[in-house]
Amino acid sequence: MNRIKDLPIGLQASGTRTESDSLGEIQVPADHYWGAQTQRSLIHFNIGDDRMPKAVYHAYGFIKKTAAIVNGRAGRLPQWKADLISRVADEVISGALDSEFPLYVWQTGSGTQSNMNVNEVISNRAIQLLGGRLGSKHPVHPNDHVNMGQSSNDTFVTAMHIAATMALERDVLPALARLRDATAARSKEWENTVKIGRTHLEDATPLTVGQEWSGYAAQLDDASDHLKHTLTWLYRLAIGGTAVGTGLNAPPDFSREVTALLADLTGFPFVGAPNTFAAQASCDALVRVSTALRALAVSLFKFANDMRWLGSGPRTGLHELILPSNEPGSSIMPGKVNPTQAEAMLMVAIQVIGNDDAVTMAGAEGNFELNAFRPIIINNVLHSARLLSDMMDHFRRYLVEGAQLNTSKLKDNVDHSIMMVTALSPVIGYDKAALIAHRALNENLTLRDAALKSGVTAALYDHVVNPERLTRPGVATIN
Amino acid sequence: MNRIKDLPIGLQASGTRTESDSLGEIQVPADHYWGAQTQRSLIHFNIGDDRMPKAVYHAYGFIKKTAAIVNGRAGRLPQWKADLISRVADEVISGALDSEFPLYVWQTGSGTQSNMNVNEVISNRAIQLLGGRLGSKHPVHPNDHVNMGQSSNDTFVTAMHIAATMALERDVLPALARLRDATAARSKEWENTVKIGRTHLEDATPLTVGQEWSGYAAQLDDASDHLKHTLTWLYRLAIGGTAVGTGLNAPPDFSREVTALLADLTGFPFVGAPNTFAAQASCDALVRVSTALRALAVSLFKFANDMRWLGSGPRTGLHELILPSNEPGSSIMPGKVNPTQAEAMLMVAIQVIGNDDAVTMAGAEGNFELNAFRPIIINNVLHSARLLSDMMDHFRRYLVEGAQLNTSKLKDNVDHSIMMVTALSPVIGYDKAALIAHRALNENLTLRDAALKSGVTAALYDHVVNPERLTRPGVATIN
Amino acid sequence: MNRIKDLPIGLQASGTRTESDSLGEIQVPADHYWGAQTQRSLIHFNIGDDRMPKAVYHAYGFIKKTAAIVNGRAGRLPQWKADLISRVADEVISGALDSEFPLYVWQTGSGTQSNMNVNEVISNRAIQLLGGRLGSKHPVHPNDHVNMGQSSNDTFVTAMHIAATMALERDVLPALARLRDATAARSKEWENTVKIGRTHLEDATPLTVGQEWSGYAAQLDDASDHLKHTLTWLYRLAIGGTAVGTGLNAPPDFSREVTALLADLTGFPFVGAPNTFAAQASCDALVRVSTALRALAVSLFKFANDMRWLGSGPRTGLHELILPSNEPGSSIMPGKVNPTQAEAMLMVAIQVIGNDDAVTMAGAEGNFELNAFRPIIINNVLHSARLLSDMMDHFRRYLVEGAQLNTSKLKDNVDHSIMMVTALSPVIGYDKAALIAHRALNENLTLRDAALKSGVTAALYDHVVNPERLTRPGVATIN
Amino acid sequence: MNRIKDLPIGLQASGTRTESDSLGEIQVPADHYWGAQTQRSLIHFNIGDDRMPKAVYHAYGFIKKTAAIVNGRAGRLPQWKADLISRVADEVISGALDSEFPLYVWQTGSGTQSNMNVNEVISNRAIQLLGGRLGSKHPVHPNDHVNMGQSSNDTFVTAMHIAATMALERDVLPALARLRDATAARSKEWENTVKIGRTHLEDATPLTVGQEWSGYAAQLDDASDHLKHTLTWLYRLAIGGTAVGTGLNAPPDFSREVTALLADLTGFPFVGAPNTFAAQASCDALVRVSTALRALAVSLFKFANDMRWLGSGPRTGLHELILPSNEPGSSIMPGKVNPTQAEAMLMVAIQVIGNDDAVTMAGAEGNFELNAFRPIIINNVLHSARLLSDMMDHFRRYLVEGAQLNTSKLKDNVDHSIMMVTALSPVIGYDKAALIAHRALNENLTLRDAALKSGVTAALYDHVVNPERLTRPGVATIN
Repeated sequence: MNRIKDLPIGLQASGTRTESDSLGEIQVPADHYWGAQTQRSLIHFNIGDDRMPKAVYHAYGFIKKTAAIVNGRAGRLPQWKADLISRVADEVISGALDSEFPLYVWQTGSGTQSNMNVNEVISNRAIQLLGGRLGSKHPVHPNDHVNMGQSSNDTFVTAMHIAATMALERDVLPALARLRDATAARSKEWENTVKIGRTHLEDATPLTVGQEWSGYAAQLDDASDHLKHTLTWLYRLAIGGTAVGTGLNAPPDFSREVTALLADLTGFPFVGAPNTFAAQASCDALVRVSTALRALAVSLFKFANDMRWLGSGPRTGLHELILPSNEPGSSIMPGKVNPTQAEAMLMVAIQVIGNDDAVTMAGAEGNFELNAFRPIIINNVLHSARLLSDMMDHFRRYLVEGAQLNTSKLKDNVDHSIMMVTALSPVIGYDKAALIAHRALNENLTLRDAALKSGVTAALYDHVVNPERLTRPGVATIN
Repeated sequence: MNRIKDLPIGLQASGTRTESDSLGEIQVPADHYWGAQTQRSLIHFNIGDDRMPKAVYHAYGFIKKTAAIVNGRAGRLPQWKADLISRVADEVISGALDSEFPLYVWQTGSGTQSNMNVNEVISNRAIQLLGGRLGSKHPVHPNDHVNMGQSSNDTFVTAMHIAATMALERDVLPALARLRDATAARSKEWENTVKIGRTHLEDATPLTVGQEWSGYAAQLDDASDHLKHTLTWLYRLAIGGTAVGTGLNAPPDFSREVTALLADLTGFPFVGAPNTFAAQASCDALVRVSTALRALAVSLFKFANDMRWLGSGPRTGLHELILPSNEPGSSIMPGKVNPTQAEAMLMVAIQVIGNDDAVTMAGAEGNFELNAFRPIIINNVLHSARLLSDMMDHFRRYLVEGAQLNTSKLKDNVDHSIMMVTALSPVIGYDKAALIAHRALNENLTLRDAALKSGVTAALYDHVVNPERLTRPGVATIN
Repeated sequence: MNRIKDLPIGLQASGTRTESDSLGEIQVPADHYWGAQTQRSLIHFNIGDDRMPKAVYHAYGFIKKTAAIVNGRAGRLPQWKADLISRVADEVISGALDSEFPLYVWQTGSGTQSNMNVNEVISNRAIQLLGGRLGSKHPVHPNDHVNMGQSSNDTFVTAMHIAATMALERDVLPALARLRDATAARSKEWENTVKIGRTHLEDATPLTVGQEWSGYAAQLDDASDHLKHTLTWLYRLAIGGTAVGTGLNAPPDFSREVTALLADLTGFPFVGAPNTFAAQASCDALVRVSTALRALAVSLFKFANDMRWLGSGPRTGLHELILPSNEPGSSIMPGKVNPTQAEAMLMVAIQVIGNDDAVTMAGAEGNFELNAFRPIIINNVLHSARLLSDMMDHFRRYLVEGAQLNTSKLKDNVDHSIMMVTALSPVIGYDKAALIAHRALNENLTLRDAALKSGVTAALYDHVVNPERLTRPGVATIN
Repeated sequence: MNRIKDLPIGLQASGTRTESDSLGEIQVPADHYWGAQTQRSLIHFNIGDDRMPKAVYHAYGFIKKTAAIVNGRAGRLPQWKADLISRVADEVISGALDSEFPLYVWQTGSGTQSNMNVNEVISNRAIQLLGGRLGSKHPVHPNDHVNMGQSSNDTFVTAMHIAATMALERDVLPALARLRDATAARSKEWENTVKIGRTHLEDATPLTVGQEWSGYAAQLDDASDHLKHTLTWLYRLAIGGTAVGTGLNAPPDFSREVTALLADLTGFPFVGAPNTFAAQASCDALVRVSTALRALAVSLFKFANDMRWLGSGPRTGLHELILPSNEPGSSIMPGKVNPTQAEAMLMVAIQVIGNDDAVTMAGAEGNFELNAFRPIIINNVLHSARLLSDMMDHFRRYLVEGAQLNTSKLKDNVDHSIMMVTALSPVIGYDKAALIAHRALNENLTLRDAALKSGVTAALYDHVVNPERLTRPGVATIN
């Protein structure tokens, strides 16, 4: 009945076009699809440079598409309208309409303006494809048809969950797995290289480099498990709750049908939120995700911090590790090489922690039936996810995979360390062992010399103090 | 062989006693069991009022007991020494020796001084029971016997895990369950009372009070599941890793045997950490616990914040809820009643978030084989756990269980609300519905009057706008 | 001698060009001025979307210009080279070369790559103007000439100070003054309108709306003074300290001469840092600025939060204030208007706090002669400054200046309030006054009725309880 | 008229005594002075172990004393009552009644319960001294007389300011000055010892140890100035604003007279707040103090962190600094010495930052005429102040004053460093200098050998590369 024209995306008009909403008419740029509410938001919220992440709009594309299909199937929406909305929604999903979503993060706390932006763009793009008049809202109305059965209050948080799920599943977790694997590979490679351990930054008993790196890998494994668990709540979507969680203006089966379709289309196990009131009144699911990113940042901070210290030097630092020379390090000091990937990782980790601080405070501030601090929450979560996934890949590629051991330094450290005296302790007692250690230090002796001068026999010493054996469990015995 | 005297806890001496360690002799108060290292710490770290939580020492009691038993079984420690250490460890566990553990939180970052405090106290108490000379370290040596097979580096973090596990399992999770149940009971009680919802603090569509409270209960359910998941890592104990995670000076089976015994004695499913290097070099497990407490605080903040706003008034506030009058509210305004439990909860939530900020930064700062920021981590985690469990019980008892609905106010709000116009939207379209809403507001009409003046028939209005029905999913249709 | 061609900015080449640094050759896009180190950074630090703020490069333009002038005057640099560098630096300052500064925030912690980016662009642009070969570093070398007497370690933090000073002096403080003035104007306008105060959200004694708003204005005044004080340290520039603060490779008078010139050119009272070691090893000056922005955010949060609550309703909220209807509030609820400017301000305040959390942690992490967490610090400080200045202007224009009092609601509240009983307290005693208040509430009486029923004479009541008089200091007396 | 008995503090009764307030009667312990409202608070807010700091009560003593004197002078209070209240207030100030102030931090957000605690205790202690009946409120009534002209809303925040002023002026600033002076003394002592600087943890150009330490001292100087500036707002007291800032029930000159007397008695320049509405509706003054403590913590973190790294070793670390051996470092590793004072300082700094995070969020949450998050704010500010002042003294005494330079290590580093090549750069150009540096590193040469092999003459090298001269500004020239 309605003939859909196969027009490419784009409006050839110039100047402005009149659009309207319940507050009246307003001029919008004629070469853009958006309508009155988007335009009002652009005027009233032209704050900073932070724009609502495009991933939120892509997620909204899925929502508008699945809602249209479900509404069409149920006969609430004529099939051709449903098909048309679905078609335009695919353009949203693909990113082809990204330039039509210009709104700022700092807008209404519900995200309504971004939802209306999507509704308006789909409406006008559909009208264009039908050869209608842009801004007429006819025959595809932004509220009555594109937003049918929906509210910003259920859909925006649904879009947040979808966008965050994709960021975790497609970016963060795979990058984390790659970093973990690369780390484990180095651990395996260096499993037999003995080094002197450090506690309190001070010399301690020996371990292998491989053991040390197995710790980094284990931290990453645990961080991955922890982060994955927060997907539990991300999969639960508020869609169907509409304005305050009751589902007013959405049919009873809307949530189930839309989430099933969303799961099909995206491949993620989305389901309807068991309690839509909590799902809309809070952003607890995203708060949990953010705290897990925070905890991951903590683990990465430790890893990167160790890297830069182990690589410090070359002449006055620890210099057990030779970091890749990716770029000159100084504008004034020729030949300097710095642990820049580690520094970037430390900064990223700190930013992720700061972002989570914002998410936490915003998450706490919900009131009654709505948490109206959603834009700041999704912007920070997606920012953190992006930084972490990019950074983990760079850190892996330009530091972890390229670092080399300074074996002579490692050996030198083992030869001069005093703390292997610990192995003597079960045999000669803590107090006597302590005397030997102090003697070695005060008289600038090797541990062996100090031990022998203190009455330990060479045979006993050599039996007990074997660096390699000291890297495994076991208590020295005399016989 | 050695005769154990059945002496009560307590030293009748006055003045000081000479104790010694590897740095030499030092005078300690003669009426206390602690030794030289505890005394040095008291002098060098007399900072503020924060003492290492007693729960850490009680946990250490379990560690010293199980280590002694395992060492005794293996013949590394004479059976009578093992039995004696185990007996004194029971006194530590019971709290009977609490006054012997005076050290500050702000001490060595490894917790070594608290470990030595335990070792010294057990040594001297054992020596007392044997009729020996305090400070002689004979025949029960603090390092060689009480600390046998252990290091502060593996045992302190083990004690942290045990103490935190107990705080979560015995205090936080049960209090959370009680609050959740009380909340759910109110939700059930009020499931049919209709109220006007609020989004952005502004009037929105109706829901039932029961639905609103079901949201609080659901948030608590999710917070509980989230928190429980972090126990996964808490159950994994570093014991057996000794100084740097290698297990030097501990037998190969030490971790397995000690953790099995710890599980038996405490009833919690403790196991050996799969990677002792990560377990000692980081405090990631406790960081995760802390972030979950942070997330719980976020949910509780929202709950308490809603309570105080719903209870605001009595004449110029929302006053849908009548909060219990637990105490007079003002020193100058007679008859004032304030939402004090809610305020206390909000403050507790904020403190928990601040505590986690400290834990996060401390968790990130580990270096090489040791995170040397352990005391601040365990102190903040246990502080948060204690505050949350106490506060949830008080908030439940003195606010949730005693609050009453102001039914006349609720009804009045329903009668005057405009936002039920939403139900008309699917029937007459969003744009026309918006006109009616604006008319009601501008002309100070009820929604019904505005609708009828705008051409909606009374029959249609009364068919569609039924507050009670608007609290359930469904789209109004004309027929 | 050297003929400078008057060429517009831009390179007409396509493909790539070979550039080199101490690590060797690398291909860079032929249509860009940057060199090898910029290109390496683009490859190794392609992390997220955060680019080093352009304001840092503009500030660097001032540094390169003044350094060249000072070096030229002293004869260290041929005058024509100094002039040429100065001329190109003006292009940098103007923003005309902004597209040549593509580097990411997440790079080397010293900002060296951004310094080299500036050096390389100025070198090649100068070479272009001389008709030389791009990448030849001849006759204007990025290090030897553009960076003469400088290090990234002194110049980058100098650029941070300049950029932050401009952001505060030109944007934040003026916007804050405008908001303060607009707020004070409303305070004056409403100085005689009596309202019921609220403490703990509960009804309290009356004050005027003007008094309430005078509090907001006073908070902003104090915040402004506090923020201005942090400029004290921002004016102190590290320039002249070079690599580690000693001034190696810079002449002794370099700092004094460059800062004097910087002060001249910018109009800000810049001086050399009294201690260059502190100035380079820490970012304490910017940490202080950031904490002042944090404190400003706290004040703004309170202001905006009050606004949204006072505007809540229209039928079930406080609704003392009628907020401007800037845009429709809901995609599903027709006619809804929300406190969106307040919500945006709350989110901005939270982001500023989160940004400061990052600045704090980054500020703490300096080591030895360098804080290598500079990019994250300047990015967050400038982000916060931008958000605050933009947001304060929008909040002022679209909320503060347009809000209207709901005078009938205000009067109604005054008529029904109970807490004016406080004025009776000095006359009849706190205990009797409390009884009257409870009676009014329990029997649903006006305060006057309750007082009279309790034995207070009408004459006494009307003498003492005069809402308008209760907004001023003074104790009621019987005679 | 009324005979005051000279009774020592203390009640000989046992069991309980009946006290009452506007909610009715309640039993309180007969051996305590507190009344009904204190008792109700003890029951309803038995949360955790955090008690309202005693310093708040001591400050309240000053307030009650000065208010009584002013009320007495004006004839509002009989002179003998004023004298009696003043006398008991002195007991409060002295700490002699500390055990009568048992309330928790987690109470009403206004601090009313602590104010009433003071009022009740003074009332009953006064009644005791008069030989009256405890709990009778006669002839000294807790509200009508002790609280005359006051509200919790103005007095509690006034007490917070007084307590915080004393903590800063008496504890934090003096300890900071002592640490600064001790640091400056070491800087002076070591002003001629050359060392190799480090940037990015990597070897850089030389400086003297004295220069490095001058940076720490400068950071402390600036932190002190910054902190002192926040006293500006702390000196401004809300007293006189009563319930909502209007001064209802306080005479017009009350604020001026009371603050003048407070200034006299305490020696601090207290004045009345210029805007009582801001002073009671916000806690901005304390927020600013807290952010300055935060910034101080940032500076201290850097100092302590450098200390532990410089002291790391003894055999495998940097070990430029020999830290005092205050105590044995390990329970398992004999002879180990750790940088424990530095670790404690790092933990304290982190706690202060976490405390400020709590203060920030609490500061933002004020509503309308009252910030009802005061107890958490003052508790955290005083906690931070206490930790910092104690810790700075310990860090100074047990680390800064006792540390020794490892001169042989320092010299060895200078001899082997490569980065002095920087001095050659102005003479031979950056690019050639870089080649020499790389050669030294790759061929494991000294810098001199590498330079000579690369064509630099010995004369030029020795002329330019003089470590001591490299620690001062200046550019090498050939002639």
